[in-house]
Amino acid sequence: MAEPTLEQLRAQIDGLDDQLQTLMNQRATLAQKVAEVKQATDGDAVFYRPEREAQVLRRVKERNTGPLDGETVARLFREIMSACLALEQRMKVAFLGPEGTFTHQAALKHFGHAVEAVSLGAIDEVFREVESGAVQYGVVPVENSTEGVVNHTLDSFMDSSLKICGEVDLRIHHHLLLGEHTQENRITRIYSHQQTLAQCRKWLDAHMPTVERVAVSSNAQAARRLKDEWNAAAIAGEMAAELYGLKIMHHNIEDRPDNTTRFIIIGRQDTPPSGQDKTSILVRMKNRPGALYHVLKPFKEHSVDLTRVESRPSRSGNWSYVFFIDFEGHRDDDRVGRVLAALEQEAMDIRFLGSYPRAVI
Amino acid sequence: MAEPTLEQLRAQIDGLDDQLQTLMNQRATLAQKVAEVKQATDGDAVFYRPEREAQVLRRVKERNTGPLDGETVARLFREIMSACLALEQRMKVAFLGPEGTFTHQAALKHFGHAVEAVSLGAIDEVFREVESGAVQYGVVPVENSTEGVVNHTLDSFMDSSLKICGEVDLRIHHHLLLGEHTQENRITRIYSHQQTLAQCRKWLDAHMPTVERVAVSSNAQAARRLKDEWNAAAIAGEMAAELYGLKIMHHNIEDRPDNTTRFIIIGRQDTPPSGQDKTSILVRMKNRPGALYHVLKPFKEHSVDLTRVESRPSRSGNWSYVFFIDFEGHRDDDRVGRVLAALEQEAMDIRFLGSYPRAVI
Repeated sequence: MAEPTLEQLRAQIDGLDDQLQTLMNQRATLAQKVAEVKQATDGDAVFYRPEREAQVLRRVKERNTGPLDGETVARLFREIMSACLALEQRMKVAFLGPEGTFTHQAALKHFGHAVEAVSLGAIDEVFREVESGAVQYGVVPVENSTEGVVNHTLDSFMDSSLKICGEVDLRIHHHLLLGEHTQENRITRIYSHQQTLAQCRKWLDAHMPTVERVAVSSNAQAARRLKDEWNAAAIAGEMAAELYGLKIMHHNIEDRPDNTTRFIIIGRQDTPPSGQDKTSILVRMKNRPGALYHVLKPFKEHSVDLTRVESRPSRSGNWSYVFFIDFEGHRDDDRVGRVLAALEQEAMDIRFLGSYPRAVI
Repeated sequence: MAEPTLEQLRAQIDGLDDQLQTLMNQRATLAQKVAEVKQATDGDAVFYRPEREAQVLRRVKERNTGPLDGETVARLFREIMSACLALEQRMKVAFLGPEGTFTHQAALKHFGHAVEAVSLGAIDEVFREVESGAVQYGVVPVENSTEGVVNHTLDSFMDSSLKICGEVDLRIHHHLLLGEHTQENRITRIYSHQQTLAQCRKWLDAHMPTVERVAVSSNAQAARRLKDEWNAAAIAGEMAAELYGLKIMHHNIEDRPDNTTRFIIIGRQDTPPSGQDKTSILVRMKNRPGALYHVLKPFKEHSVDLTRVESRPSRSGNWSYVFFIDFEGHRDDDRVGRVLAALEQEAMDIRFLGSYPRAVI
C-alpha cells in the first residue's frame, strides 16, 4: 500500500478536528446541563468542583496511551474544562500580583485561561477579596524560597476562616546574577535565600567552591544588595534580575531540574474527597520541651504521612508556638479523623485549613 | 422523560472525554506521519507551517456552532496543535523579556504552551538569536504605545534579513497611577505616552477635564516621573505600577475595551499564502516633497488596503526616509505584485519583510 500523501494526511487531520470540535461543544452542552441540575437543587450552587476536576484529570493521565504524554493531555483537558465552566460562571480568581509573576502562572495553570485573574498587591488583600466574596478563589504562594513570602500566607491563615481547596506546583529556575560593573572573576561572595543556596549547592561546589555563601531573607533581597557591592553575586530569578538591572551570568543553576515552588488555592467551601487528597492544619502548642514530638506522634501512630511541618511563633505572644502541618489524606478518612482527635488532646488549639486534591499536573 | 441526574450527566461527560482523548492522540499520530512525509522529501524540513495553522484556526472559528464561542475553541485548537507539533520538534521561540511581559503572553498566545519560550533582554538580541538559528522564531512588539519600543523593532529590520511570518494582537489595559503620597484631588498634571493619552481621552474628559495632559516618550517614563512629583498622575500598565511602587487609582480607563497592542513573529523562512494575509515592506525614499504621496499612490491605484504606514529617518544619513508599510494581501497575489513593481520605480530601495497570515485569535 502506498504511503499517504501530505494532502491525504491533512484531510484526515481536518476530519479529526471536526470531530474534536463537535465533542468539545457537546461537552460544553453537558456542562450546562450539570449547572442546571445543580441550580435546580440549590440556588446557591457552586459550579466549580475541585475534587471532580482532579478526578477527571487523573483519569486522563492514567488511561493515556500516547503519543501525547499524560501531562500534556491533562493540560489540554484543564483548558477544555476551564472553557466549559466559563459558560456557566465566569470565575474570578485573585492572585498575588503583579501580572506575570509565578503566582499568576500558578493561577492559570490551576484554573485554565478562561477565568478572570485579578492581580492584587499583597497576600492579605487576596484573603480579604475571597472572604468578601468579590472573587471566588485566591492563589497565594507557600514554600516559596524565591520571594520569601511564605510567612505572610501562613500568618494570614491565623486570622481567616478561609479553606485551602487546592495546591499547585510550578517549576522554578535560579540564575547567577551580577551587577553591571562586576566581573565574574572578582566575586568573593554570593547572596541568596538559604533554601536557594541549598538548591544550587552542587553547581556552586563545582563552579565557585571558594566563594563565600551568605544567606539573606529572600532572593529579591539578595539581588537588591548587589547595588552597592562590586565583588558580590546573587542567586535569584529572572524577575529579580530585571527589577534590579542585573546581568544573568549563568542560567538555571539549580541542582534539580524539577525544582518546584508550591502555591495554594483558597476559597470559602470545603472540598469533598477526590480519592488522592492532602490536608492542612494549624496547631497551637504551649512552648514546652517536646512540643513537636507530641504534635507528630499521632501521625506516626495512625500511619498518616506528613508532607510538611512548619513552626511559627504565635502572634498572641503567650509563649506558644503554631505548627502548620500538611499530610496525606482527607478529613473524611477514618485515619485522619483519629489523628485529628488525638491532636485535640495535645494542642491548645487546632484549626482545620482544608482537605483538597493533591496536585495532578 | 425524566431529567438526567448529575451522575448520569457526569458519566456522559466521561464518555465524551474518552473520545476527545482518543482523537487528540490520533491527531498527534497523524501529525507524526506528516513530519515523516516532510522529512522523506526534505531532510531540512520545516515542521511549523504558519499558513496551515491559520487555515485550521479559521475553519474552526467559521464552522463553530457553540455553545463554546469561536475564539475559545480556536484557542483550544491552538494548544492541541502546539502539543502535536512539540512531538516532532520542540520549538524554541525567543521573546523580548522578562518573563511575564506582554511579549511573553503574545508568544504563548501565538505558539501555544508547548514551545520553549526563551526570554531575552533586548530586541536586537531576539533578532540575533533567530538569525543564528539558536531559536526558530522570535516575538517582538510593534505598535506598542505602552513600552515605547516599536522603533527598536523597525530599526532592527534595517540590518536584518529575517522575515515576518505572523502577527499577534493582545488586549492591553491602562490604569491611572498615583505616587504613594499623592491625593487624587491634588492632581494638576497627567503624564503618559501620547498614544495612551489618546486611548483614554473619553475617560479623561469625563473624570479629569481640567487636568493638564503631558505627553512623554513612554508610559514607563511617565510612571518614573511620579517619583519626584506630588501633584501628578501617570497612565500606564500594571507592570509599571509595580516597578515604580505606584497606587492604581482607577483600573482599565482605556476608552475601547478592545484596546490592543500588536506583536510580530520573525523567522528565517517565507510563508506561503493562507488565503487571508498581510504583507510588510520597508521602502527607502529620497527626502523630496511628495515622497509619501509617491509611496502611497500604487496602493490606491491597485486597490490594495494599507493597514499601517510608519516613517523613520534612514540611518545611512543621506537625507532619505524609510517607510514601514503594512497592507492586505500576499506577495504572491497579482495585485500585490503590481504594487511592488510600481514601488520599485519610485523608491531608492525596497525591502520585502514578509507576507504572513492575518491574526486569527
